[in-house]
Formats: sequence, structure tokens, C-alpha cells
Amino acid sequence: MGMLNREFLQFVVDHSLQKDILRGNFGLEKENNRVDGNGKLALTPHPKAFGGKMENPYIRTDFSESQIEMITPVFETIDETYHFLETIHDLVTLELQDEFLWPSSNPPALPKDEEIPIANMNDPAEDKYRKQLAEKYGRKRQLMSGIHYNFSFHEAFLRKLYEEQKANIPYKDFKDAIYLKVTRNLLRHRWLLIYLTGASPVFSKTYIEQCVQLSDHYDEESLFFPNMNSLRNSICGYRNEKPLVVSFDSVGDYVRDLQSLVQTEELLSVKEFYSPVRMKPAKGNDFLQDLLQHGIAYLELRMIDLNPLYKNGISLETMQFVHFFLVFMLLIQDEPFGEEEQKVAALNHDSLIMNGIRGRLFGEEERFVTLEEKALAFMDEMEQMFQVLKPDDQPSLRLLEQEKQKIQNPDLSYAAIVRSDIQKSSYLSYHLDRAKQYAKESKASGYQFIGYEDLELSTQLLLKAAVKRGIAFEFLDREENFVLLTKGDHKEYVKQATKTSLDSYSTVLIMENKVVTKKVLERNGIRVPNGQAYRNLRDAMADFEVYRDKPIVIKPKSTNFGLGITIFTSCFSKDDYQKAFEFAFAHDQTVILEEFMTGKEYRFLVMGDEVVGILHRVPANVAGDGIHTIEQLVNEKNKDPLRGKGYKTPLEQIQIGEVEEMFLKNQSKYRSDIPRQGEVVYLRENSNISTGGDSIDFTDDIPESYKKIAIQSAKAAGAAFCGVDMMIDHIDSEIFRRFMIHDETISIQLQKDY
Amino acid sequence: MGMLNREFLQFVVDHSLQKDILRGNFGLEKENNRVDGNGKLALTPHPKAFGGKMENPYIRTDFSESQIEMITPVFETIDETYHFLETIHDLVTLELQDEFLWPSSNPPALPKDEEIPIANMNDPAEDKYRKQLAEKYGRKRQLMSGIHYNFSFHEAFLRKLYEEQKANIPYKDFKDAIYLKVTRNLLRHRWLLIYLTGASPVFSKTYIEQCVQLSDHYDEESLFFPNMNSLRNSICGYRNEKPLVVSFDSVGDYVRDLQSLVQTEELLSVKEFYSPVRMKPAKGNDFLQDLLQHGIAYLELRMIDLNPLYKNGISLETMQFVHFFLVFMLLIQDEPFGEEEQKVAALNHDSLIMNGIRGRLFGEEERFVTLEEKALAFMDEMEQMFQVLKPDDQPSLRLLEQEKQKIQNPDLSYAAIVRSDIQKSSYLSYHLDRAKQYAKESKASGYQFIGYEDLELSTQLLLKAAVKRGIAFEFLDREENFVLLTKGDHKEYVKQATKTSLDSYSTVLIMENKVVTKKVLERNGIRVPNGQAYRNLRDAMADFEVYRDKPIVIKPKSTNFGLGITIFTSCFSKDDYQKAFEFAFAHDQTVILEEFMTGKEYRFLVMGDEVVGILHRVPANVAGDGIHTIEQLVNEKNKDPLRGKGYKTPLEQIQIGEVEEMFLKNQSKYRSDIPRQGEVVYLRENSNISTGGDSIDFTDDIPESYKKIAIQSAKAAGAAFCGVDMMIDHIDSEIFRRFMIHDETISIQLQKDY
Repeated sequence: MGMLNREFLQFVVDHSLQKDILRGNFGLEKENNRVDGNGKLALTPHPKAFGGKMENPYIRTDFSESQIEMITPVFETIDETYHFLETIHDLVTLELQDEFLWPSSNPPALPKDEEIPIANMNDPAEDKYRKQLAEKYGRKRQLMSGIHYNFSFHEAFLRKLYEEQKANIPYKDFKDAIYLKVTRNLLRHRWLLIYLTGASPVFSKTYIEQCVQLSDHYDEESLFFPNMNSLRNSICGYRNEKPLVVSFDSVGDYVRDLQSLVQTEELLSVKEFYSPVRMKPAKGNDFLQDLLQHGIAYLELRMIDLNPLYKNGISLETMQFVHFFLVFMLLIQDEPFGEEEQKVAALNHDSLIMNGIRGRLFGEEERFVTLEEKALAFMDEMEQMFQVLKPDDQPSLRLLEQEKQKIQNPDLSYAAIVRSDIQKSSYLSYHLDRAKQYAKESKASGYQFIGYEDLELSTQLLLKAAVKRGIAFEFLDREENFVLLTKGDHKEYVKQATKTSLDSYSTVLIMENKVVTKKVLERNGIRVPNGQAYRNLRDAMADFEVYRDKPIVIKPKSTNFGLGITIFTSCFSKDDYQKAFEFAFAHDQTVILEEFMTGKEYRFLVMGDEVVGILHRVPANVAGDGIHTIEQLVNEKNKDPLRGKGYKTPLEQIQIGEVEEMFLKNQSKYRSDIPRQGEVVYLRENSNISTGGDSIDFTDDIPESYKKIAIQSAKAAGAAFCGVDMMIDHIDSEIFRRFMIHDETISIQLQKDY
Repeated sequence: MGMLNREFLQFVVDHSLQKDILRGNFGLEKENNRVDGNGKLALTPHPKAFGGKMENPYIRTDFSESQIEMITPVFETIDETYHFLETIHDLVTLELQDEFLWPSSNPPALPKDEEIPIANMNDPAEDKYRKQLAEKYGRKRQLMSGIHYNFSFHEAFLRKLYEEQKANIPYKDFKDAIYLKVTRNLLRHRWLLIYLTGASPVFSKTYIEQCVQLSDHYDEESLFFPNMNSLRNSICGYRNEKPLVVSFDSVGDYVRDLQSLVQTEELLSVKEFYSPVRMKPAKGNDFLQDLLQHGIAYLELRMIDLNPLYKNGISLETMQFVHFFLVFMLLIQDEPFGEEEQKVAALNHDSLIMNGIRGRLFGEEERFVTLEEKALAFMDEMEQMFQVLKPDDQPSLRLLEQEKQKIQNPDLSYAAIVRSDIQKSSYLSYHLDRAKQYAKESKASGYQFIGYEDLELSTQLLLKAAVKRGIAFEFLDREENFVLLTKGDHKEYVKQATKTSLDSYSTVLIMENKVVTKKVLERNGIRVPNGQAYRNLRDAMADFEVYRDKPIVIKPKSTNFGLGITIFTSCFSKDDYQKAFEFAFAHDQTVILEEFMTGKEYRFLVMGDEVVGILHRVPANVAGDGIHTIEQLVNEKNKDPLRGKGYKTPLEQIQIGEVEEMFLKNQSKYRSDIPRQGEVVYLRENSNISTGGDSIDFTDDIPESYKKIAIQSAKAAGAAFCGVDMMIDHIDSEIFRRFMIHDETISIQLQKDY
């Protein structure tokens, strides 16, 4: 049949555009209806946690108040797009109280049409439009949900192609021509995508009465049409009332035809033009004007069903295949696509819906050709395309082979699998079970932000929180965890999750400098340990007698992470004392000697006026079993997936370096020693998480009075986000608590490494 | 005669208190009348630059609007106190427009009494009190000015003495007893201090009529009393109307007597008790109550004249001697000081004033003793005291010897020198000449803050500005130039002069990161040079062809001070390119390649909405003379006192290290080369001041349009204080200016090292 434009393909090869043609920008939009625990449409309002429906760029409502729309940003890879959608899906799921996301394009158990809540948008134009849609199509039809797949070729590809082709037209027109061609071909051959992505073969008896009456049924509630894989793409689905013909010859003609449809009130608005493919301009307020002025920026594919077989509503393979198909649409021959051809395309669409892949292909006049035959020819040519663009790329070839099998054996199609599963159960319980299973998976999805695991954990959590609240983010320096958060006009630059404009420069400088921190705390009425600063070893040595055998800590003035610190809890020699100072001076020009406060160390996480968490921090340690060496125990403990490196996990791995060996040696221990069963061996004196310490949640176990001191300390330095370290004895003794809080000197340090 | 309490002195030695007894806290207060260019009292208001008269802790007004009072903080050394006073004096002088500080205790040429402006305090109580004083004493007398010398023993000394003496009284009472004793002895022997510090022997004919009539005169306007060295300490001076007797036996008695004087309306207020020595509590609102409750904190000596021989109104030697005398007053015998003894002390005071040092010493009944005899005995005993406390301390012994000579030869006294100088000129012109000479010296005093030269220059300037505006400061970490500024309730923590709470943490983080800075500027509509960031050498090398022989700069992402930067202005080899990247990667994990913008570099200093300065910065260089080597020329240039190290001077010294040698080598030059006459040899490509660059003021030479871009750039990062570096070609060409500002890509960097 020879659809591939081999001349064009050769041109791509000749100009080394093979890689670039496969680059692109991807975005997904997905709708899910919210349902209660019985699979009935939820009649509750859109969760407040997601903020304004018009403002949150990631989480909105669609037609109905119960219909949540999830929108990813645009990414250059399918993986990023896919993972981001999954993150939104997880976040939405976690926010729902006793409700679930309905995983089918076809609606769940519905109340009467008039009881379906239209989304309350607090916007007169939006509210009016939704009311008109409800009247024109009925509310039930508007609950049909699906995936919108947004795609554009990479700018680098289009630019290079433009330059190499030396077309004598402006770049904008060149780009429009590319997208118009792809759109025409997509519309012409859309039946194949519908076949391969359709996943809504069965529907509920509560759906539109007319459709219910025409249908067959498996059981009392599960209805279907024979051979139909996608109710949503059928006349019972989300379609304009009658077929509309517009020109796809040029953007100008397209716009003109759409405008005329609106003027003749055929359409309520251009938004109502439910074409399976939309040509879209870059963001703007006036869709048609923007298209005319700035040209087509991307294509929106609207025929893809929610796939209940996947939590995300779409599989990675489908995303991949659709991309290949889009590239293929560019590389095949271009043909006229007037009224006649559009009708033929619609016929093929309906042929697929009514008769399946074995149905007739219209438009081939010579003989009776099935859709299947044509589809297999497509697959062959796509494979040929791949052999040129990405020779021997096994994953891609495997994917094509897999899709080919679905064509040859309709039982392997998504719709067939869904249909067969429903037959063993029922429409409602099948989808409800899936919904509950996916909710469970979302809840188990953990703390990480998939696709962003290269970031520090704190930044991953921050970005997830941002998505939920509808705060857009972008990376200014991803390696440094430096992001820009934007909501409306407000911009916030954030580094490592807690470094923001809420803290002032001077606050940070105060916290960086232990001498200054102490002075500032003291001045604000907070008792701090006695101590002294030394600028040289001589002065420090001169004071040896003063501190002899007192519990002291010797530490560099301005360092974090516990480097260079020595603690003497009892007797020490002059030599020990000197070494401790030398050690500390290696890290800073000024060294602090301070009385050592005993007790357990707690880190109070202060955010503004609140203590949001308290962690008891324990120095890096292992518990003996009488069998393994210290080193083996460390390695074993480090296998915990919660322990990682570079703050990407809640805890850090324990090291056995110079410092740890020295510390062991002071206890007359070596890494090869085998500790007794139950013996806890510490590898560090300091309890910083960064040096492998443990962290135990004490948020609910610390009396308010201590929290007040923590807040007061943060305030003294003017800190909005601040870790306050306190040494506290006898936290459990009520008597001690009351006594200590007033009279005790509390060792307090302020930390920016929250 | 044996005044020294040798038992006490021995006790001090036995308990190793010799050093501690000589420690103390010192503060100075000084009044100067403002005069016009003719020596007439200025009738203008107190300069606004000094802020509120009640709020500025350093610069206030005294009785008259024309009488400026300067107050130092308390220091542990005389030097610090002295230098701080000098700095205030300089700051005040520089603020005066066509006015001068009158250097004598005796008033300048005065108008009629009622024309002398009483200070307008905007405080009813203060205003009322001044009015009452004016009525009671006349305004002219209130214009008498002087030095108040505040002193306390070091707390460490008092504490140790208290502990060693094991006195069975509370510490507060012990301390009071110490100060009461010193006060009694000071009052008893004050005539000697008046002799050695008196410096107001001549006065103006415009002074109080009664005094004028009683006096002799050198010329028509210069009046005097024979033998009188201090008009201020005479009955024509600043004294209570009649001698007042109060008890100095205990604080309780003292307070009781003062209260009774106020109750009987003998005094308008306790402030009116013009005793030559006041016992003062630590700061508080109720003088007498505070004395009773908290005890004596320090002594205020009020009999010291302004010394016109010194710009500061007092010599360092005088400060030193007064301190010794105070210690001596503690170490001599204590005797009763009742009404009778107080009268004798007053007699001796007047004896000194009327007859000078050769006058009679009252209170010695056995025979006629002169003040001189007694004074010499004092000096002998002080010397003995020194031989014990500070054996063979030559400077102190020399000082004592010098004072002794003034006793033996009255012509050497300050008053005699002043008198003799006036005889050659006149009262008015002598003091006016001095005033103008001192003003000239103040103007030449330069940028530094004497006593604070260890700080960076920017911090010195900040603190001087703070003093002028009445903002108190203290050091949180002096080595780090970390200060706390306080005005009223407002506290500002400032490090290195420009690191304040006005900048947010995120602003600083943006500026630290060149990649982020560029993105932020770009987003805010500022054109920045094209460039790319590399994480490894391989990627960088892969782009060699792209940038081949273009003007580029290769630099580490996050470093200041121009380290690791290479600039290629023309052809370069692949090897050069690689080396440049290796060099930059040695400083940062990420390296930026950027198009190199030609032009001259200007640093715009932005403060809020304003460009407060523009410096054209030139890389470290020397100009050849055909004789000296590059190294010699560098050494010569470094001798400029404006060049120093560690930012304590306006410019930094030029180094010849590895970087400079490499840079010379690239020009086929060596440090031992002798450049031709007039040849300028650059030692650095980058123009940072920190690497020895020159800095030329262009503040008034840069068009507004560039300033706007600088302000816009600072605002983009949210910076309150910011150095904006711009490369600008053709700053002088009007045509270029207009063109460039709109279309040019300007290389902008934001710097915190202002």
C-alpha cells in the first residue's frame, strides 16, 4: 500500500534528524469521577485541600463537581509525564475521605440526571456554560471521562527541519502545516487508536435511558453493545449532537469554520467542538485569535479512554505507542481531507465501534478490506519506519509486536480483558474493586516523588505538597534543589525545602555562628551553657586547669554536621584536651569550649509559631547479636531502604571512617569486634542524622513548656524555619519537668539543616 | 606623711590583685558650644543629622541648643574610650556647616542672656527644668562646658576583693563602701585634680557681668583672675549657689540628704547637685531609688575642664593620670568626711583657684603647708604605689614625673600654657584658631574608625554612620564583623556591613548561584549572555566546535572573587579550552560557559531603589617606568596606604601568585620583566577589588538608563543591598547609549561582596 513518504523519511536521515524527530513535549490530562464506597457518584464538594478550582494548575474539576481533572505540566519525556500524573493521582486519592476515583471512562452508579452536581466554579461564564451543556447533552453524558494526550514535536526538530527544507514560508506557517498534516492523518486513521486504547466496553444501567434500552446486558446492571470497545467513542458517548465538518486545510480556514459554527449557534462555544483531535495554540485567553496569530503549538488527542487496568488510567505502553503513531502520521503521505474524506473517517470510526477490528474499512473502493487488514499494514510500515529511525531498538519493536497481536487477536485488547473480567463479576463491583485496590496502592506509594528521586527528600515532599495546593514549580538548579514556586503573582524561591525568603539573611548568619547564636539566645532570656571561644591553641591550653575533668564539649565555631567536635564526659588528659582542640581548629579558626549538658538530644522542628515535630536523635549505632562484627552490623543496618545518601531518604547510611574508628578506639573497640547479644555500640558521639544517627518521633511526648522554649529560641534568631536542638534530662519525670523548665540551663543550638 | 594604706596595698599583692586593681571601665562625656566663624555662639538648631536629642546615645544637646554633648559608651580601656570620643568629635565637626566646636570650657562670645537659645527638647519636664535653671543661674553660666569622666573598678577586681576580704556584708554594700571611700578621698583631694586639669584661665568680656567687673584683663576682651587656672571651678563657674553639705558615710544617708535638699527646694532636682564627684547607679529612671536598691555602679568626675590644647578636649595623659589617682584614692587611708571636713575640702578647692598651687593647704593644723608640698607628697606616694602594683613600668613613671614637674613649675601647667598663648593673641582669636585647626584635622581624619581598624572598612564606615545617627552598636563576633545595631526597640543584626535582615535568605542563595541568577534575571526581562552549564568535562569537550574561537568566558558556577575563571577573547586551542574547564572544575562541580561580553566593567552599588555608587573596576595592573621590574612595581604600588589586606582599606594589595604568573605567562611576560615607560601590565583578567584591582568612581558619569537596569536587576533577586556588575561598551558615546540600552545583552552579575 505504501503509505510511508519514503522521500521524507530519507530527508530525515540525510539531515541527521532521526533522534530529533523522536523528541517531543508531552502532557496528560485525566478525569476521574469521585464515588462513594458503594460505587455511587459522590455528591460531596471538591476537596478544599486543592484550593481554587480555577487556580490549581494540577487539580481541578471538570463538568461535574464530582469529576476531578488532573493535569500534568509539559515534559520532554513520557516517563516524567507519566510519573507526574501518578503523583497527582496519589495525592488526590490520599485526600479523599471514604471516597474513591472511579477508574472507568463510563460513569459509576448515577442518581437522576438533575441530582448530578454541576461544578460550582464561582465564575458566571463558567457556571452558565456548564448549565447549557447540561441542558443540551444531559448531565450523565458529561460525566464520561477520559485521557487527553497533549503532544508537540520538539522545537529543535521543527527548527532544523525548517532550516533544512528551506521552505519559502515563515516558520509559523511551516509549523502549522506540519501539525495540520498530522491532524488530518490522525483524524483519518483515528479508528486504530480507538481500537488500541478503547477500554470502556460495559456500562451501568443507571446511564442514559436511551442507551440502556438499546443495549445487551451481562447481568442486571452491566450493559454492553456487542463488539463495542468504547462507549465513550460511540454515539452514546461524548460527541457533538451531529457530525460537524470544518476545514483542516489551513489554520485560517479552520478558524473561520469554527467561528461560523458558533455564530450559527450550532456550538455554544468553540470549546464544545468535541473533535477527537484538537489543534491548540500556546496558552492564551482567546483560543481562535491565538491560533491565528501565533499558530499551532501542540495537538490534543481526546479519544483515549480511561484504562481501568492501570492505576494511572493509561499504560506507559499506550503513551509510547501513541507517540510512535503521531510520528508515523507525520511521515506518511498527505492527502486531501475535505467533507467527503471526513465522512469516510467518521464511517471508519463507527465501523470500529459497531463491528470491531474485523469491521469494514470504508474508502477503499477496489475491494472489501477489513480494518484489521489495514491495521496490520500500518504496523508493518511503522516497523519499517523504526528500522530507519531507531534501527534494532528492541523495546520499540517489541511494543509494536504487542500491539500487532492485539489486532490479530481481539481477545488481547484492553476492552476485551475488561469485558471478560466484568463478566466474572459485574460492572460496578469490578471497577469498585479496582478503585479500592488503586487507593491502597496510592496509600502505600510512600514518601518519594517518583521521577524526582534525585532530589533531597525534603524537596520531594515540598513539591508534592505544592502540587496538592496547586502551586506551580520549576527548577532553577535541580542539582542544588533550588526551585521556584509560583502561585498567581506570588513567587517564592526555595532551596533545599526550608531555605526561603521567610528567613532573613541575618537570621541565617546568626544560626551559622555558634558564638553569635549563644549571645542572641542569652539576650532573649534563654539560658545557655557557659563557654568560651578560643582563637589559638595557646590560649586554650592556658585554660586547661580551669576545665580539667569537667564535662565539656570542644567544637569549631561555625560548622554543622557534627564535624570536629569532641566531648569529654569525665576525666581527660592534657594530651586529649590538646588533640581535641587541634581537631576542632582543623575545621574553624575559632573553637568553642562549652560545658557539656547531659541528657538526651531532641530536635524541635519549628515553623513560625509552631513546633511541627520533635525528634529524639540517637548517635549512629548498632545492636549486637553475638554473631556479627560491628562492620557487618553496620552494613546490615545500612540495607534499610530508609537509609540512603545525600538526604534523599529519611535516614543516612552509617559510615565507618576515621572519626568512627577513633570513637570506637576510645571505647577500646574495633570494627572487627563482635558485640554481645543486645549490646548497643555507638559509632559517633554526636547524633546528627547526617552522620548516620537514628531519629525517633517524640512530637507528642514532649511537654508544652519545652516547645515554648524552642519557639522562643527560633524567634530570638528571627527564624521562620528552624531546628532547635535541646539536651533534656528526665523528660519522663513529671517532677523534673516542672523544676527544670524554669531553672535549667538548656543547651540550645539552632540549625538550618532542618 | 604616710597616706598610703600599706596594709591594704600588701593585701592586694598577697592576693595577686595587682593587675585587676588597675582594670576598670571608662566613659567620657564632653560638651562643646557651637560657634560661628567669628567665635560667636551659634544660634542655629542642633543638626538634624544626629536625630532625636533624647534618643541619640552619643550626640545630644546639654543646657543650650548650641551646646553639643558627646557621650562615649563604656570601655575597658582608656584608649578605646579616647578614640571613640575623637570619632564622635570628628563626626560632629563634619556635620557642622560653617560652624565650629568651641574648645574652651569658658563660653565663646555671647549675646545677651535672653538671646541664648535654651535647648528645645520637645519634652515638657526637660524644657521646664532648663527654664528654671536659666532663671536661677542665668543662661551664660549654664554654657560652661567640661569633661565628665566616668569610672568604675572592674567587676572581676571587686568580686575577688570581696571574696578574699571575707567581709561579712552583702556584696552590694561592700561595693558601695569602696566607692564611698574613693568619693570621700576624691572630694577631699580634688584640688590636685583641678590643678592638673584646669585649662580655663581666661574668659570673654561677654561673660556674666559680675565676674567681668571683678576681673583683670589682658586686652579689651580677654579677662582673667590672677592665679586662677579654671574659671569653671571658681565661684564664677558651674557651681551650686551656696555650698551644700550631704553625708558620704553611706548610700542611705547620701540619698536621704539629697532628698531633703530637693524637698526644701534648695535644689530643683537631684540633677542640680553640682558636686565635683557624683556616685551613680547603673542606668535607671529613678536616680536615688536605683542607688538605694542596686548600689553605686560608677563614679562621675565633673571637675575636669575642656583642654583647648587637644582636639579631644582632654589628653590621653590626663585620662591616664585621673585613673591612677582614682586607684590611689582607694589605696590611701580613709578618714571621716563630715560637714567640717567638707568645708576644709572646699577651702582647699578655693585656695587652689584663688592662689594656685603655691596657696595654703587647709586642714593641716601643725604648720603652714602649701598645696604644692602636699601635691609632691602625693606624687611620691603614687610612685611608691606604682612600684608595688606595676614595678618599673616606665610609661606610668614618666607620666607621674611629668605631672610632678607641673606642680614644681606652674608655668608647665595646661592653664599656664593656654594663658601664655592667649596673651600673644586674644581669648577669642586663640580659641577660634584652635577650633578651626581642629576642624581641619577632623576633616582630614579619613575613612577609618580609630580603635576599630581591625574591622573591615565597610563595617568601620557603617559604625561611624551608626554613631552619627545615634544607633547603638555592640559586637556579636568582632572577628567576623558581626554587629548588633539597636535603636529604641529596633534591633538589626549586621554582618560585614551589608548582610542584614533586609535581604532574604533566598535572595542570597540566588546571588550565590550564577545559573540561578541568570534565570531569575532572564525571567524579569533582563537580557543576559547566552551560555550553558556543564557538570563534566566530557560534555564540555563535546561542545568545543560550537564555541571554537568565539569570545567566551569559562567559570565555576558558584564562586566569588574571580577564582577559577578563564576568558578567551580570540582564538584558543582545544587544549586551552580543556585546561580552562579543568581549572574551573577545580572550584565547582558545575562550570558555566558564557559568551564573553566586551566593554568595561562597572559595579553599580544598589541600595533599595537607588544606585548609590558606580565604580569602574580595572584588573590588577602596574604602569611601567622602564626601570623597575613588574614585581618591583607591584611592591611599590602596594605601599599605597589605601591598599591593605582583608578589606580594611579601600583597595587590596596586588598579589603575585600562581594565577598572576599564569596570566603574565599567557602574555609572554615574567615577574622579572621591566615594562617600558607608560606600558600598563595587567596581572589579572578579572577586575575584582579582592584580587588587587583598581576602582575608579564613575557615579556621576553613567547614564540613568543603566542605573535603572541595575536597580531592576537587584529587584529581580529581591536584593536590598547588591553590587550589580555590568560590562558596558562605549559609555561615552551618546549614540551608542541610546541604542544599546534597549537592544544590548548586558552581562550582569549580582554580588553580595558589595
